[in-house]
Amino acid sequence: METSSFHNLTPAELRAAIRRGDWRKPTAGLAPRYVQVNLAILPAAHAADFQRFCQRNPKPCPLIAVSEVGDPRMTMLGADLDIRTDVPRYRVFQHGEEVAQPNNVLDHWRDDLVTFAIGCSFTFEHSLIEHGIGIRHIEQGRNVPMFRTGVQTTPAGKFSGPMVMTMRPMKAADAIRAIQITSRFPGVHGAPVHIGDPSLIGISDLSKPEYGDAVDVREGEIPVFWGCGVTPQAALLQAKPEFCITHAPGFMLITDLLNSDYAVI
Amino acid sequence: METSSFHNLTPAELRAAIRRGDWRKPTAGLAPRYVQVNLAILPAAHAADFQRFCQRNPKPCPLIAVSEVGDPRMTMLGADLDIRTDVPRYRVFQHGEEVAQPNNVLDHWRDDLVTFAIGCSFTFEHSLIEHGIGIRHIEQGRNVPMFRTGVQTTPAGKFSGPMVMTMRPMKAADAIRAIQITSRFPGVHGAPVHIGDPSLIGISDLSKPEYGDAVDVREGEIPVFWGCGVTPQAALLQAKPEFCITHAPGFMLITDLLNSDYAVI
Repeated sequence: METSSFHNLTPAELRAAIRRGDWRKPTAGLAPRYVQVNLAILPAAHAADFQRFCQRNPKPCPLIAVSEVGDPRMTMLGADLDIRTDVPRYRVFQHGEEVAQPNNVLDHWRDDLVTFAIGCSFTFEHSLIEHGIGIRHIEQGRNVPMFRTGVQTTPAGKFSGPMVMTMRPMKAADAIRAIQITSRFPGVHGAPVHIGDPSLIGISDLSKPEYGDAVDVREGEIPVFWGCGVTPQAALLQAKPEFCITHAPGFMLITDLLNSDYAVI
Repeated sequence: METSSFHNLTPAELRAAIRRGDWRKPTAGLAPRYVQVNLAILPAAHAADFQRFCQRNPKPCPLIAVSEVGDPRMTMLGADLDIRTDVPRYRVFQHGEEVAQPNNVLDHWRDDLVTFAIGCSFTFEHSLIEHGIGIRHIEQGRNVPMFRTGVQTTPAGKFSGPMVMTMRPMKAADAIRAIQITSRFPGVHGAPVHIGDPSLIGISDLSKPEYGDAVDVREGEIPVFWGCGVTPQAALLQAKPEFCITHAPGFMLITDLLNSDYAVI
């Protein structure tokens, strides 16, 4: 199949294609009306602490769903969905060190694993674009710039660390409208956490993001910063549990949930 | 002190008064600009399941904060706050049976307890009143009517059961405005879950609420139903853990959080 033909598929069809190994690329732009999620999969012994960490940091860690212990299905995200096979690329860690980047985790699955599905900015970006607000990294064909900031998360148990934020430069009028629009999505990062001077949140150079790609910031534009789903991954890897699995950045899980279901007004 | 003099106290002053035993009545109307919360206190062995239950049922179970295991302080709710002493009346349960209604739980505290602070409708009622929308049960000096409905919660582990809803009758224009206003507060029950015909959610008689008091529903008014914080308590008691503590209905924990902090727009 040509890449373009994948863009008309439903979430269930896309998951089936990914499960068969027919799609092994990043998922940006696929099924754009539907919620895509970050994954953190870890042993039940750490699950209560990690869920408390997410609850305390809802802007970077908006929790969409939590699985039952050991259950690779999450029917609330999709009737057919299988956490072990439906993401195009995973990362497997032991004691905080990456040991594999497989296309499924059937061989790595354990009966004590709990899956956390965490919201992703694709949801609110879709709404910003529908409202006519340009997203620079999409226009430039790049990954969103992500910065490890000086803002600390609220710790829970062994989980802590800096808040990672995405940045999108905008004209002032668009920034104001973007604040209004993303405020409608508190369950998926919600309103920005900072606007303007990057040095106030410990960022010294906007052209050097820690993750993703730099984008152009033009004359008269204001940088707008949102909590980023890399934050819980960073907290997870910093805590170095003996075992955990995440999706690979950009290779998200596509769910049956509509973005519009996450708009509170 | 006269009752009226309590109405000018700060949350910290009110908690201190409650701690000393100077206030042993329900907390409705005290520190009205501040968030009051429902409490569920249970052994750590049940905490992951209970938190997953709250995550899956955010309308009746909006989680404001979760304590560390065994820690009776929750500084995110108030620097001085002590979960064991700062509620005017508690209920202590063993295997789902109430064994005491003490004014503090110093003698019942255990090192394995986790406290869940769950949002309460006082927050959005304050906002409705500020917008000029009359709240019938307040006008009639009664407790809000609460109904055990035919709508089921999404289970998690051993926790399940019917959704309990509060009902407020309103004229249509006020109901529309109330939907807009409470949508701003997704972290504190949020928008209604039902409007209109009570039989559609398994309620046969609006004059016979399972909890609280009946209120007058007048000609041309529409009943408006919100998820109720009694839902997680009911799920907790149905699961019959060997031990748990809750606040007594109406005797809430007063926090330092502003209601307005929970408005997303």
